Amino acid sequence: MKNLNIGLVGYGFMGRTHANAFRSVSNFFDLPYRPILNTVCARNADRANAFAAQWGFNKAETDWRRLIENPEIDLIDIASPNDTHAEIAIAAAQAGKMVMCEKPLGRNATESEAMVKAVEAAGVPNMVWYNYRRVPAVTLAKHLIDEGRLGRIFHYRAKFLQDWTISTDLPQGGEGLWRLDVNVAGSGVTGDLLAHTIDTAMWLNGGIQEVSAVTETFIKSRKHTLTGQVEPVGIDDASLFLARFNNGSLATFEATRYARGHKALYTFEINGENASIFWDLHDLHRLQYFDHRDEGQVRGWRSLHITDRDHPYMSHWWVPGLQIGYEHTFIHQVADFLEGVGSGKASSPSFRDGLATDHVTDAVLESASSRKWITVKQ
Amino acid sequence: MKNLNIGLVGYGFMGRTHANAFRSVSNFFDLPYRPILNTVCARNADRANAFAAQWGFNKAETDWRRLIENPEIDLIDIASPNDTHAEIAIAAAQAGKMVMCEKPLGRNATESEAMVKAVEAAGVPNMVWYNYRRVPAVTLAKHLIDEGRLGRIFHYRAKFLQDWTISTDLPQGGEGLWRLDVNVAGSGVTGDLLAHTIDTAMWLNGGIQEVSAVTETFIKSRKHTLTGQVEPVGIDDASLFLARFNNGSLATFEATRYARGHKALYTFEINGENASIFWDLHDLHRLQYFDHRDEGQVRGWRSLHITDRDHPYMSHWWVPGLQIGYEHTFIHQVADFLEGVGSGKASSPSFRDGLATDHVTDAVLESASSRKWITVKQ
Amino acid sequence: MKNLNIGLVGYGFMGRTHANAFRSVSNFFDLPYRPILNTVCARNADRANAFAAQWGFNKAETDWRRLIENPEIDLIDIASPNDTHAEIAIAAAQAGKMVMCEKPLGRNATESEAMVKAVEAAGVPNMVWYNYRRVPAVTLAKHLIDEGRLGRIFHYRAKFLQDWTISTDLPQGGEGLWRLDVNVAGSGVTGDLLAHTIDTAMWLNGGIQEVSAVTETFIKSRKHTLTGQVEPVGIDDASLFLARFNNGSLATFEATRYARGHKALYTFEINGENASIFWDLHDLHRLQYFDHRDEGQVRGWRSLHITDRDHPYMSHWWVPGLQIGYEHTFIHQVADFLEGVGSGKASSPSFRDGLATDHVTDAVLESASSRKWITVKQ
Amino acid sequence: MKNLNIGLVGYGFMGRTHANAFRSVSNFFDLPYRPILNTVCARNADRANAFAAQWGFNKAETDWRRLIENPEIDLIDIASPNDTHAEIAIAAAQAGKMVMCEKPLGRNATESEAMVKAVEAAGVPNMVWYNYRRVPAVTLAKHLIDEGRLGRIFHYRAKFLQDWTISTDLPQGGEGLWRLDVNVAGSGVTGDLLAHTIDTAMWLNGGIQEVSAVTETFIKSRKHTLTGQVEPVGIDDASLFLARFNNGSLATFEATRYARGHKALYTFEINGENASIFWDLHDLHRLQYFDHRDEGQVRGWRSLHITDRDHPYMSHWWVPGLQIGYEHTFIHQVADFLEGVGSGKASSPSFRDGLATDHVTDAVLESASSRKWITVKQ
Repeated sequence: MKNLNIGLVGYGFMGRTHANAFRSVSNFFDLPYRPILNTVCARNADRANAFAAQWGFNKAETDWRRLIENPEIDLIDIASPNDTHAEIAIAAAQAGKMVMCEKPLGRNATESEAMVKAVEAAGVPNMVWYNYRRVPAVTLAKHLIDEGRLGRIFHYRAKFLQDWTISTDLPQGGEGLWRLDVNVAGSGVTGDLLAHTIDTAMWLNGGIQEVSAVTETFIKSRKHTLTGQVEPVGIDDASLFLARFNNGSLATFEATRYARGHKALYTFEINGENASIFWDLHDLHRLQYFDHRDEGQVRGWRSLHITDRDHPYMSHWWVPGLQIGYEHTFIHQVADFLEGVGSGKASSPSFRDGLATDHVTDAVLESASSRKWITVKQ
Repeated sequence: MKNLNIGLVGYGFMGRTHANAFRSVSNFFDLPYRPILNTVCARNADRANAFAAQWGFNKAETDWRRLIENPEIDLIDIASPNDTHAEIAIAAAQAGKMVMCEKPLGRNATESEAMVKAVEAAGVPNMVWYNYRRVPAVTLAKHLIDEGRLGRIFHYRAKFLQDWTISTDLPQGGEGLWRLDVNVAGSGVTGDLLAHTIDTAMWLNGGIQEVSAVTETFIKSRKHTLTGQVEPVGIDDASLFLARFNNGSLATFEATRYARGHKALYTFEINGENASIFWDLHDLHRLQYFDHRDEGQVRGWRSLHITDRDHPYMSHWWVPGLQIGYEHTFIHQVADFLEGVGSGKASSPSFRDGLATDHVTDAVLESASSRKWITVKQ
Repeated sequence: MKNLNIGLVGYGFMGRTHANAFRSVSNFFDLPYRPILNTVCARNADRANAFAAQWGFNKAETDWRRLIENPEIDLIDIASPNDTHAEIAIAAAQAGKMVMCEKPLGRNATESEAMVKAVEAAGVPNMVWYNYRRVPAVTLAKHLIDEGRLGRIFHYRAKFLQDWTISTDLPQGGEGLWRLDVNVAGSGVTGDLLAHTIDTAMWLNGGIQEVSAVTETFIKSRKHTLTGQVEPVGIDDASLFLARFNNGSLATFEATRYARGHKALYTFEINGENASIFWDLHDLHRLQYFDHRDEGQVRGWRSLHITDRDHPYMSHWWVPGLQIGYEHTFIHQVADFLEGVGSGKASSPSFRDGLATDHVTDAVLESASSRKWITVKQ
Repeated sequence: MKNLNIGLVGYGFMGRTHANAFRSVSNFFDLPYRPILNTVCARNADRANAFAAQWGFNKAETDWRRLIENPEIDLIDIASPNDTHAEIAIAAAQAGKMVMCEKPLGRNATESEAMVKAVEAAGVPNMVWYNYRRVPAVTLAKHLIDEGRLGRIFHYRAKFLQDWTISTDLPQGGEGLWRLDVNVAGSGVTGDLLAHTIDTAMWLNGGIQEVSAVTETFIKSRKHTLTGQVEPVGIDDASLFLARFNNGSLATFEATRYARGHKALYTFEINGENASIFWDLHDLHRLQYFDHRDEGQVRGWRSLHITDRDHPYMSHWWVPGLQIGYEHTFIHQVADFLEGVGSGKASSPSFRDGLATDHVTDAVLESASSRKWITVKQ
């Protein structure tokens, strides 16, 4: 097992999930590489130092360029706000570093295309943190679909519902609130929550052909933390679209931060000729599965309790019946990434996969503004 | 199709469910007999007349003996308080009438034995209204067990939880409250709710060998409606017991009217070597079924939605997906009873089945008072 | 209490639910009128006679014009296929009869407008059988919304999922299958399932401003029962749309008969600034309610078990904890209609309300064909 | 923050959960002490070394006495089989080490009493790993009860259901299977699963006065891994009891490894005059709460999603809506223990609390063998 030195950029919510994943993965998985928490980078030196101490990084930096220049560091992991992704990722790739990048890849497909070009030109391993693929229940859904159990697919429906921005008192921008600042985030829920639903959907059900979308900004202006002024809100608070997949199935997608009562209710359902699957992030350790080929009298939705040793990833954890949580998806993603680096077989979602999602979110935003059906760039 | 004239005694909650069953059954089932609402009997003439008008009985009486003397009447249905069951049933049987009796059969096994003797001596069709056997989901559970799908049985657990008597202001006795008067009811929840759980359990899992029980009266005295005095409460508010069935399985049973938050939460679960079943009256149109022989990765509890045409009784109702409710169990019971009368093959639960339940409830009360394990009379 | 003579046209699934409602309502509700099952009409004399015998109609007819000519009959109830609604309703209104009509009102808004004109010109009481408004849980949702508990509404989402037409072997047209014949039905799921979701939505959340829709016919040709030939399928198998309500809230609607695992899964959710509501036809006796104003630590979705005496309609039924089923919604509708006739205050949904739904379904079909956002005629 | 050197005995399932807790706690909690993984001890040197490498212990030992002799080590953590608990704990206490011990404390109350005596005589911080108290939902239940929200308590019911020993092919004893060997384990499910339910119950609802129990060994003999012979099974496969708490409430408890379909279904419910609470380990991030004082029409069981910042422990983890899992309970326990060490205020469950549970399990086993109600030693 070789050491693999990590340079982490960002120390917020995502910085913590990534740091935890790199720090824990070797306790649970036997891998060709052991991640070493080499350096964490944040603009504010005090925060960077505190984060380094809390998580056991060897050192802290305030300029991400120093990480890229550091020959010790093998992998640059980007967990900073969206407006920094492209520049850092491209520089890291050009320096020959492996690159992992928090989602969405860029603020739009134009940025993402440049990032894809950079990592592919450099030939470096790369990955986007669409972590929900690694919920064991979601991975199992993928297996069941790939085995052909569902038959012809008729319908897909996904939603990602939150309610944390309903208050008019919430400011935009600044620490912890950059997701409300369109210049930093690129868009609102479209690039944030909706992007997650799209990544999973295309992984499970293939490419999306065309979309008809509507977006809304319910609170039109908010105080901006950085300027102290009340300013127009540039992000979308809600984003909904109809879609037709390449395989002919029809879909509804919805993301919002205005669904009172839901903190992070990401759900998807897929209906095939023979079987259907439903999953829900609020009970992420379960998968609902209906198989029409079951004997009639005892046919019903099965609540699969995804804690058994033959379920994806679960043999690495505890004993059957005992659930894991949210952060484990990041640990799984690191495990798969390192396996891929070891075997030379890239693991997904790659930057190219991340770009495909950005093509859809761009089409969604264009449809919402033009009020037309938009064909997605494939 | 021949007419079958009904004489109903009682006009309360159970009088309504029985009247509705007799009145509706021919709309949904093709049967050898069509029930005719001949006469309803209640002590109070005004109420009897009002009930007759509401439900379309040909006439009303205030003395149940007049029903038994009436040669037109084929079947006496007893829906009056528990202390009247034995006398009416015995007289009806001796007069050669068919007899249906609300549960529990008698206030104790001694009364019930006399009732069994009477109907068996007279050779008249007889039935006790343990209606929950005819919830389609419960009937399906019976079928699945009879097909041997569960294998060796290890565990049975049942509970029937209500919360309607928690208030100390509730009086005992009188209109609608005779269930709190031990002289009328015979016991508290033991003969009321617990008896239901026992009837179902023995139907599904065979005889009970021995029990260890505890009962409690949480509110020790209440105003008695009839006397106007505060009097000691003679009924049990809660009744719990451990049991060993004849087949070696172990069980817990619990009934109470002091489980805040539950109106009529009757649930049972049975665990076999190969499969398990769970049912819940609050969602009576569902049956939970787990089959260990399912393929490992997709093994899970199945939520059977009991609304399909191949589910028991459901081809008589609407279309798949549309649920029926509580009162339908009574309609099914009448349908089965009339089928049995037509075919000459008695349908259960007979008075003898009702007696078997009373042997268990008697053992429960004896165990609670002696603090010993009691062997149930078989 | 006066008698009110019913002439029922149609003897299928809906004929049964209506007959049952008229026959049972007086047992449970004290009303100014008692429905009398005067005449049932069906094209086939044998079926008409059998239906009359089963349900206790005084007589049967094979031509609906005879019902309208019959001065005894007070109310014409239309439960026959969609292509007959307009002609019968208009004739009945012109003859001065009260008219109740199964939904959708017409096959399209043009037919419906003529029907509205007829009943309003005649001044006769009229109603469309959008029965789901009378599920007690749905009625409670209406009350909670009308009390202002939700605050500003942000989102509405509804779906109605079935799976009964997935098989390619299923023919179109003929007995029990006219819903697959576009000439008879007018449309597929749009006028069938989707119309239900629209009626409820506009009742709860007001008018719909504009829609963007997509429809699909997954099975393109089926054998036609009447011709014996394989013919193109004219109906839509699935119909999905985005909507903006007049109050500014955004919505997704979906109806399909290709959602494997769902028999009649009609659900809706409404998210307001302060509270949210969710309901599901597969567990129709429950309402999910979230109130953000609840104390933080114990704030959560409440599963309201709609069986208490203070819940809409439930004081007429059994005791708390015991659920009712599907057919009760029709009984409630008759009760409200008769109350309205007695008081002279029309109860909804009137024919005019039914027309409003048809304006939306027409807009949905137009949007699906034009691939444009369509403004709904108000 | 001072370092606190850990000596861990045991490397099995519990060794892993403890090691993970000590290793991770400082990443999420700011504490007066930082645990250092000093030494792990296991009888087999290879396994000990492998475990040390996997988890980052400084070194490995094969004799636990070496840990106790090591002056560097501050805390001895016992995660080895039950038959080793007493000897190690007593020696550790006598050497002045802090002691944490996996549950049950001893194989019986006699062993446990000696352990309590040792830690109390030495005055060393001590704790038993009844980890389920630290599920945030369970901790919240404790807070709600302590605030008096439930009022007078009428009922408590708990069960812990598994199905992993149903196969007759499963041997007893040896690696991973010592829980089936009565000499090592002390008892079967009584000291294993049932002990968990008792610890929680007494924490939430106070002491247990008396019990009536029944146990069963369904598979009477199994091959013993160590001897290679088929030998009688000495443990109980199932253990059920009725109880009366000191506060007058009645209870049922059940633990079994023969409940097909359940991997680790630990549930408890408590019914008070004003409110009720239900919890379920299979969905450990939820708490069901019913408050009778809620307004009638919208009164119902609330599904509390225990992921908000104002829920116990949750401000240390991710963002609202994102669940944690099983192993976090151990992290919380270490955090509380270290807080207690820092503040000098012992945190529970102490060895004395563990002894109280053993008094109940001893009474359960005595009741099952004597078939009598047994008063629990307080």
